[in-house]
Amino acid sequence: MKVSAMLGQRFKQAPSDCVIESHALMTRGGYIKYMANGIYSLYMPGKRIMRKIENIIREEMDAIGGQEVLFPVVMPAALWEQSGRYYSIGSEMARWTDRGGNPMVLGMTHEEAAVHLAKDTAISYADYPFMIYQIQTKFRDEPRARGGLIRVREFTMKDAYSFHTSQEDLEAFYRRCFDAYNRIFRRAGCKNYMDFKSDSGIFGGNLSHEFMLLTEIGEDTLAVCPECGYRANMEAAEYIAQNAPGQAAPLEKIHTPDCSTIEALANFLGTDTKSFGKAVVYQREDNDGYIVVFIRGDLDVNETKLRNLVGCELRPAVITEECGIVAGFIGPVGLTPNAQVVVDRSLEGIEAMVCGANQVDYHYKNINLARDVGLVTYHDVAKICEGAVCPGCGRPIITIKKGIEIGNIFQLGTKYTEGLNMTYTDKDGTVKHPIMGCYGIGVGRLCASICQESHDDYGPIWPISIAPWQIEICNLRADDEQVNKTAAELYEQLQAAGAEVLYDDRDIRPGAMFADADLFGIPIRVVVSPKTCERGVIELSTRDKSYREDIPAADGLSAVLALRNRLMAEYK
Amino acid sequence: MKVSAMLGQRFKQAPSDCVIESHALMTRGGYIKYMANGIYSLYMPGKRIMRKIENIIREEMDAIGGQEVLFPVVMPAALWEQSGRYYSIGSEMARWTDRGGNPMVLGMTHEEAAVHLAKDTAISYADYPFMIYQIQTKFRDEPRARGGLIRVREFTMKDAYSFHTSQEDLEAFYRRCFDAYNRIFRRAGCKNYMDFKSDSGIFGGNLSHEFMLLTEIGEDTLAVCPECGYRANMEAAEYIAQNAPGQAAPLEKIHTPDCSTIEALANFLGTDTKSFGKAVVYQREDNDGYIVVFIRGDLDVNETKLRNLVGCELRPAVITEECGIVAGFIGPVGLTPNAQVVVDRSLEGIEAMVCGANQVDYHYKNINLARDVGLVTYHDVAKICEGAVCPGCGRPIITIKKGIEIGNIFQLGTKYTEGLNMTYTDKDGTVKHPIMGCYGIGVGRLCASICQESHDDYGPIWPISIAPWQIEICNLRADDEQVNKTAAELYEQLQAAGAEVLYDDRDIRPGAMFADADLFGIPIRVVVSPKTCERGVIELSTRDKSYREDIPAADGLSAVLALRNRLMAEYK
Repeated sequence: MKVSAMLGQRFKQAPSDCVIESHALMTRGGYIKYMANGIYSLYMPGKRIMRKIENIIREEMDAIGGQEVLFPVVMPAALWEQSGRYYSIGSEMARWTDRGGNPMVLGMTHEEAAVHLAKDTAISYADYPFMIYQIQTKFRDEPRARGGLIRVREFTMKDAYSFHTSQEDLEAFYRRCFDAYNRIFRRAGCKNYMDFKSDSGIFGGNLSHEFMLLTEIGEDTLAVCPECGYRANMEAAEYIAQNAPGQAAPLEKIHTPDCSTIEALANFLGTDTKSFGKAVVYQREDNDGYIVVFIRGDLDVNETKLRNLVGCELRPAVITEECGIVAGFIGPVGLTPNAQVVVDRSLEGIEAMVCGANQVDYHYKNINLARDVGLVTYHDVAKICEGAVCPGCGRPIITIKKGIEIGNIFQLGTKYTEGLNMTYTDKDGTVKHPIMGCYGIGVGRLCASICQESHDDYGPIWPISIAPWQIEICNLRADDEQVNKTAAELYEQLQAAGAEVLYDDRDIRPGAMFADADLFGIPIRVVVSPKTCERGVIELSTRDKSYREDIPAADGLSAVLALRNRLMAEYK
Repeated sequence: MKVSAMLGQRFKQAPSDCVIESHALMTRGGYIKYMANGIYSLYMPGKRIMRKIENIIREEMDAIGGQEVLFPVVMPAALWEQSGRYYSIGSEMARWTDRGGNPMVLGMTHEEAAVHLAKDTAISYADYPFMIYQIQTKFRDEPRARGGLIRVREFTMKDAYSFHTSQEDLEAFYRRCFDAYNRIFRRAGCKNYMDFKSDSGIFGGNLSHEFMLLTEIGEDTLAVCPECGYRANMEAAEYIAQNAPGQAAPLEKIHTPDCSTIEALANFLGTDTKSFGKAVVYQREDNDGYIVVFIRGDLDVNETKLRNLVGCELRPAVITEECGIVAGFIGPVGLTPNAQVVVDRSLEGIEAMVCGANQVDYHYKNINLARDVGLVTYHDVAKICEGAVCPGCGRPIITIKKGIEIGNIFQLGTKYTEGLNMTYTDKDGTVKHPIMGCYGIGVGRLCASICQESHDDYGPIWPISIAPWQIEICNLRADDEQVNKTAAELYEQLQAAGAEVLYDDRDIRPGAMFADADLFGIPIRVVVSPKTCERGVIELSTRDKSYREDIPAADGLSAVLALRNRLMAEYK
């Protein structure tokens, strides 16, 4: 491809709305074009990167027996009613009505479609297991689109669905897919990524893993042990409390005027919040009932763990006079029974703590839950934090990191096959619902994440496995016959040898050409100029600046190809 | 791929709603699965065919300098308001409102998006020409979805858009794209297809061509000269009238009771309808005004040509008392002036014709338009018919055929670049709108059309260039060790040699396996059975039954590969 013929412009100044480097560089480099909130078009270099990532994914999915299929973008709402998700998913699902008056949806994921495709076909145990996947456009009416392709509304996704007749078989395949994901990310050039056991959110089901690229711009918060390898999404990480039990003492009601916050109380009493029992109140989404969580004063509630515990969505409570909850002074002793009480494990074993007295401006001192409340069941609903005890090795060395989710795998169980009534006949003649797994990778997000991980101030540094082209030739003097001849010949030879070459043949200043080359981010660069021609060489270098050498022009072709092969071998 | 591991079933009975062979065979063969009206999922074999067609298209688009890009499926309505199509397109465009209250549309074509991508980038004449294309999902809320993938609502389309600074440059590129389309269709295995100059419909603009696969199930009607090569879509075909002028005679009003139809009048007068002037009345969509067309009694009005002539959409007229039109007895002499009159060329030169007298139960005889009406301008608005005079060679040998549109190319002019205000600065410093062309191929329709053209009673006969696999091995006795060994070895060897092989390894009856093989439609078949093993051979044949031979098993690999290479060479 000649740059002179290619649509797209590159520019110096990052648009003011780009707060993330990869977003700025992919906009400045002519990869993406904003059309509407979370909706982008791709220029040729962007599309080429996407296709290369897609092909890596395709190869690895095929290698574990995946069958590529295609589901529709537009689906009848009726299909989503069968699984119940038409109702359980909110405004992130795009809904409309067709000319015949039928309610339709845009696919944000395709569990229902996968079951629809398979259900009348895989009817005997002998038809199992199988995995089907597609690489297709999805739409999710995301309230917080941001960061270019990092979080969009319309996106290209690889989504795979496997079907099994036993949990063991699902687990065996799940493990193979886990390994395939590692190969995909490695081949695509991801460096600093990790898998995390995760909360499976709206997908329901059992075990799941997220693959996270660790980066400061990530939206997910992760707990990682630097020693033993333990790691978990903060949403799912267990919190292990190490409490100083203190000394039991008689219960005492104290006057604590204006101490309705934990900080005010700590100030007033001159003590550490670790000896406090803090109350946090939620309301259930299903029946508006109150949930009061008691947790150690220095900790926060992990709402995901709490949600999983109580089994429904929650919202911060609106505390009215009627509910009998005394905001700011809530405590376990004498609490109105109109609320479900959850006590976090961080309060277990504390002999004497400070808690609200359920009366304005009063707290209790020396509360001992066993003595003053009775039998208490403790649950783990605390949020893990920097320096927390590692659930893996027990040392207080947990570090908190940020990550972008670049892939996820789920054990779905029979939620969808039951909902859509997909069955098969087992060996013994009984009729059963198959067990499913699902496996997703967002192609555009992966592309943007790699750009985020692999760039310098001047542009992306694309891994050769996904670079839009492998080699760029910079012709520094388009008006010089010898330079033109040398550059054009090498371009032709490299193309004939099957290499992917971008040829910058424009008559522009070298500075502008190099600035563009940095934005193209192509791993191998060849510079041809009057100076190199004079010396009978070409200048060969890599975008990551790890290599730069003058090569006799006569050896140019073989040297460039050898360098390409060496770089490509790293991503095999 | 092993058939035993593949999702999908094949069955004997065509579903009752399949009236078109390709629809029945692609359903029976496990290629497509109906989800909703005009919405299908694809099983693995269907998806593989689609990808192969896409890759052929991609290669040919790249070869003429095309740059692959990607536009969004979901677009803001605001973009379509700029071109005016948000208003001019009716209910075939899917519309909805996002969570932020913004009206959105699903792309049914991407002219607006192409201009949006290019407009701030291609700002100098030196940036031209260029062509961008995508292969992407589209949605058109088609009222008449039919025939499986022949006419759907959701479809995969290659759409390309070229931008030029002169009409000459557009025409030169248009010709290159025309040639590329011929290569695409030939390589994909289309046999009986033709290009047709066509009416450009809602796309506006200038010259356009449709590529039509000729088939009885086609929806388009085509006029073809078997001698001189003239061909046109009936919508655009010129009709050349050869009239017997007759003998001028005095105008005469005759009583024609109950003769309000042309047939009744012909019966009553005992004459041929060729001497009648028939009136057909329409109403304009824009202002409800009437249009009365006079045309020779044996001919029909070509509404496309009429629409183009009067410059707006038309509908059959509702004739009320007030409008002064006397239905059934309309004629050019004494006609109320409240209507626009269009006279077809088929009435030119007739010295004496019969026409309505604008009075119930009365006609005129011997009307001579020049004498009785005055100066008449004649227009070509008649529909061409079987045996009509060929506009190419003048012989009355036109044949009427049916076709499926498998591709189209349009010269769009500046409609979209003006609407979206895309400009560039020309050499002389003036600011201009670039000129566009657009070029579409529906991938699924092409697939279904090829199946329609290339099948027998038992299944598709896929051209090897797009077949889901090149070779199928049928293992007729999965419980026979020698058969298994021979078949499995050949399968491994062929795969290692880079061939695409489907291996039917199921333990089923030979009849069922052959029925499935016919539905898979794979061009090369290898049969391994106890009988072939006994004789030390494999049975090699082609799906189209043109070849069948026993090959020594030891030569199997090379014979199969040689046959594959020979077949593939036909589609180079």
